[in-house]
Amino acid sequence: MDKDDEKRIVAAVDLGSNSFHMIVARLEEEGTLSIIDKLREPVRLGEGLKGNGKLSREVTDRALACLERFGQRIRNLPHGDVRVVGTNTLRVATNAEKFVAEAQRLLGHSIEIVSGREEARLIYLGVAHGRAAREGRRLVVDIGGGSTELIIGEGGDSLLRESLYTGCVSTSKEFFDGGEITEKRMKAAILNASLAIHPVAQDFRAGKGRWEEAVGCSGTIKAIRNIAQAEGWCDTGITLKSLYQMRNRLIKQGHVDRLRLESLKEDRSPVLPGGLAVLIAVFETLGIKQMRVSGQALREGLLYDLVGRIQHRDARDATVDSVVRRWNLDVGHADNVMRTSLLLFAQVEKDWKLIEENRQLLKWAAQLHEIGLQISHGAYHKHGAYILMHADLPGFSRTEQALLATLVLNHRQKIRLNSFDELVSRAQKPGLRLCILLRLAVLFHRGRTDEQVPDVSMELDREKIILTFPERWLEQHSLTDADLQKEARYIEAAGLSLDYR
Amino acid sequence: MDKDDEKRIVAAVDLGSNSFHMIVARLEEEGTLSIIDKLREPVRLGEGLKGNGKLSREVTDRALACLERFGQRIRNLPHGDVRVVGTNTLRVATNAEKFVAEAQRLLGHSIEIVSGREEARLIYLGVAHGRAAREGRRLVVDIGGGSTELIIGEGGDSLLRESLYTGCVSTSKEFFDGGEITEKRMKAAILNASLAIHPVAQDFRAGKGRWEEAVGCSGTIKAIRNIAQAEGWCDTGITLKSLYQMRNRLIKQGHVDRLRLESLKEDRSPVLPGGLAVLIAVFETLGIKQMRVSGQALREGLLYDLVGRIQHRDARDATVDSVVRRWNLDVGHADNVMRTSLLLFAQVEKDWKLIEENRQLLKWAAQLHEIGLQISHGAYHKHGAYILMHADLPGFSRTEQALLATLVLNHRQKIRLNSFDELVSRAQKPGLRLCILLRLAVLFHRGRTDEQVPDVSMELDREKIILTFPERWLEQHSLTDADLQKEARYIEAAGLSLDYR
Repeated sequence: MDKDDEKRIVAAVDLGSNSFHMIVARLEEEGTLSIIDKLREPVRLGEGLKGNGKLSREVTDRALACLERFGQRIRNLPHGDVRVVGTNTLRVATNAEKFVAEAQRLLGHSIEIVSGREEARLIYLGVAHGRAAREGRRLVVDIGGGSTELIIGEGGDSLLRESLYTGCVSTSKEFFDGGEITEKRMKAAILNASLAIHPVAQDFRAGKGRWEEAVGCSGTIKAIRNIAQAEGWCDTGITLKSLYQMRNRLIKQGHVDRLRLESLKEDRSPVLPGGLAVLIAVFETLGIKQMRVSGQALREGLLYDLVGRIQHRDARDATVDSVVRRWNLDVGHADNVMRTSLLLFAQVEKDWKLIEENRQLLKWAAQLHEIGLQISHGAYHKHGAYILMHADLPGFSRTEQALLATLVLNHRQKIRLNSFDELVSRAQKPGLRLCILLRLAVLFHRGRTDEQVPDVSMELDREKIILTFPERWLEQHSLTDADLQKEARYIEAAGLSLDYR
Repeated sequence: MDKDDEKRIVAAVDLGSNSFHMIVARLEEEGTLSIIDKLREPVRLGEGLKGNGKLSREVTDRALACLERFGQRIRNLPHGDVRVVGTNTLRVATNAEKFVAEAQRLLGHSIEIVSGREEARLIYLGVAHGRAAREGRRLVVDIGGGSTELIIGEGGDSLLRESLYTGCVSTSKEFFDGGEITEKRMKAAILNASLAIHPVAQDFRAGKGRWEEAVGCSGTIKAIRNIAQAEGWCDTGITLKSLYQMRNRLIKQGHVDRLRLESLKEDRSPVLPGGLAVLIAVFETLGIKQMRVSGQALREGLLYDLVGRIQHRDARDATVDSVVRRWNLDVGHADNVMRTSLLLFAQVEKDWKLIEENRQLLKWAAQLHEIGLQISHGAYHKHGAYILMHADLPGFSRTEQALLATLVLNHRQKIRLNSFDELVSRAQKPGLRLCILLRLAVLFHRGRTDEQVPDVSMELDREKIILTFPERWLEQHSLTDADLQKEARYIEAAGLSLDYR
C-alpha cells in the first residue's frame, strides 16, 4: 500500500432534478481536497414527475440504474465520509420515500433530502471554495430545474439565502409548452419570474453595501455563458446585453427544435428559453450588469461541508448556537439537561446500538427543547416541535429536522408513538430511545435549580429500563419520586418499562 | 334627569365555573368607578360538564335563566361599555358555541372566552386596584373551580402570569370522590397539586426580589380565611399553620357531609377538601407563610380593563407593541402597511358596515402580519397564524386571537375561505372584508421601499371592489399591475370581484 492509499477518501452525491453528480476526493493532510473522480449522468429525474406528484416507473428505473453504478464506487466507504443529498424533485415527489429507500440500498449510504435554503447554503459553500479569495460580498445565483437559489455571502459564509419556486424546467413547461418561442411568451415568462423574485428583491438588489460581484453557477448559467461567448456577444462572464441578444435570437429562430447556437448542446435546447427568461428576470430585478461564472456548485459545497464535520467545524453546531441566541433560550438550564442526557446516553449506547449521529441529535434536542416557550408556556413542547419542523436550520437535512422536532414534541407528557411512525424508518427505533433519554434528563432537572443531579445509574434488561439512585435519595426527593411514577406509566404506554429504586 | 344619571354606566359579567357575577358601576369624572350594583348567582356551570365534554341541558337552562335576569339590567347599555367573559368551563365545553350564542342574545352583548393567562391578568388587575397602593411586588393566587391562577405583579402591572389545570372542583372530584376525607387521600391530593405547580414553582417561589406579600382572592380562599378566623386559628389573612389545623379537622370529621366548621356555608362543603389541598400545595411549594385576602377579583379586573379601553389605555395596544419588539418585527414596513390598510378601511367602512372593533383588529393584524418570519420565510403567513393562535396575548380574547390569526394566515397567496368558517359566526363576514383590506395594503407595499403608495380610491358596487389609480400610474408600475391581476383571481375565488384601472 503506498502512502496515497492511506489517505481518507470522501465523496458527495447530488441527486439533482436534471442530472445526478458524484464527486470523489482525497482529503489531504492540510485539510484540502484533491478531486480524484467526477461523474455526471443526465438522469432527468424531474421529467419523471407526473401530474399526481409521483415519480414514474421509467425514470425511477433510469435513476436507480445510475445509482447502482455510483454505488460501486462508494459503497464501501465509511458512513461518515459520504454525503448524498436530494433536492427539488425529491422534495416534492409524493412517492419519494420508496425511491429513497431503494437508492440508499444501492449506494450503501443514507440520503438527506435538503430544503431549498439548505441547498442554497451548500451551493454558496461550493462557489466560495472554488474561487480565489476576494474581498467583499458576493451575490451567488443558481438556476436549477425547479428552483432558483439566491445567496449573499462573504468569504466562506453565506449571510442571506433564498430558494424561489421558479426554474428552467418549470418556466419552459409553463411558457414554452410545445417548444414555440414568441416575443409575447418570452415577455410573460420574464414577468412571471420577476414576480417570484420580487418579494426578496429588496434584500438582494445591487446597492451600496449589499454585494460587489455577482457569480452564477450550474448547468443553465454555464450553458448560457458558453453560448454568449461562442457567439461573440461578450468576452468574460455574462452581460445583460448578451442576454438580450440571445433572447432576440431565440425569438427569431422561433422554436426549440430550430435552435442553432454556437456551443449549445442538444439536450439543453428544451430548457434554454425558460432558463434564459429566469436569468433575464434575475439580472433586471436585482440590477446585475455583469455576472461571473463559477465551475463549482452544490456537490463541491457538500464535500466542503463534509470535511468541516470531519474536522469538527459542524455547521449544525453553529446553527443551534445561533438559534439558542435568537430565541432567547435559557442556556444554563438547557446545558444542564444536555449534560445529563449525554451521561445517560453513555450508559446505554452500546446496548441500544446508538451511534455518534444519534448522540449529536440528542445533544441538539436538549439544547433546543424549550424553544416553544417564546410562543407560550402552555403546550410549549408542541410549539417547539412546530418551530423546529418549519424553521430554516442551516446544515440540517429534513430528516434530521423531523427527528429533532419529534424529540422536542415528546420530551414531556405522553409519548406520541404515531409521531415516531412518521419518521423515516431508520430513525424510528433510535428516535424513541433518544426521546426517553431526553425525558429522563428533563425530569431530573424539573426544579430548574443548579442542585446536583444524583449519580443515577441506567441499565437495560431487554425492554426494561432500570434506574438506580443513591441510597435514600428518592426518599428525600418525593417530587422526583412522584414524577418517576408518572413517567413509568408514560413509558409503559409506549411499550417499554421503567423500574427505579 | 339629575346629574348622576348622565354619567356613563359600565358593567362586567364573569361567567365562572362556580358562580356567575355581574358588577355595574358608574364611571366618575376623575376616571374612578363607583360600584352601583353587584349580583352573584351560584349557577355551578362546571357541574354541567358531562363525560363527553358537553354542557348538560339542565345546567344550561339554569345558566340561561340567570343571564336573562342579568340581561334586563345591561341589555340597553352601549356595546363598548359592557364586557362579558367566560372562563374554564366555557374553554373546555365542546358545545360551548351554542350556549354562547344564546347567552349573547339574552345579554345583548358579545361574550369573550378568555385563556387562563388572560384570566390571570384580569384577576391581578382587580386585586391591584382593590388595595391601598403598596410598594414592592406581590404574588396573587386565585383558586377557581378547574384552574388556579398565579400572578406576580407590581403596582398595576402583572409581570408573570400562569394558569394551572388544578382547581377546587377538579381536585375534589379526583381525590375526594364520594365525600370521604382520609389522611391518605389528603396527602395524595396535596402531592398532585404540588406536581401541577412544580414546573412554574421556580418563578413564583418566595425569594429575594421575587415578591414581598402574597394575596389570595375568590371564593375558595375567602371561605378558608373566614373559617380559619372564625375558628380562631389565625387573626389576619391565612397562615400555613391554620391550614394544617383545618386539614386535621377535616380528616377527623372524615366526610364532607359531616363537616362542622364555623362560618362554613353548606354549598362550599363539597369542594372544600380539594380547595384546601390546592391551597396547602401552593403555600408549601411557593414557600408562603402568610397570605392576605383581597375582596376583589376577576370581575373587578374586567371593569378596570374596560375603563382603560374607554380612556385609550388599551391593554391590547401594549401587548402588540411588546410582541413587535420581542419578535424583532420590521416596524417601518409594518407601519406602512398599517397606515395604508386604515386609509382603505376609512373608504369602505360605511358600505361594509365595519365598526371600531374591526378597525382595531385590522390595525393589529397589519402590525403583526410578518411575525412568522422569525420561524422561516417560506409560508411565513402560516407560521404567523400558528404563533398568533397559540401565543399568550394579554388583553385579547380567544375570539379576537382567532380572527387575528385568520387575517395573518390569509394576508397573501390564496384566500382560505374555510379558515373564516371556523371563526365565530359574527366575525366571519367582517373578517373576510378586513382580510381583503390587509391584502391590498400588503400588495401595495410589496417592494418594501418607502416610495409613496399612490392615492388609490376604493369603492364598492355590491360584491365588486373598484380600485382607481392616478392616471398612468399602473402603466409605470407593471409589477403592481401584474400583482393586481393575480389578486383579482384570488378575490374572485373567494366569491367577490376586483376591478382596477
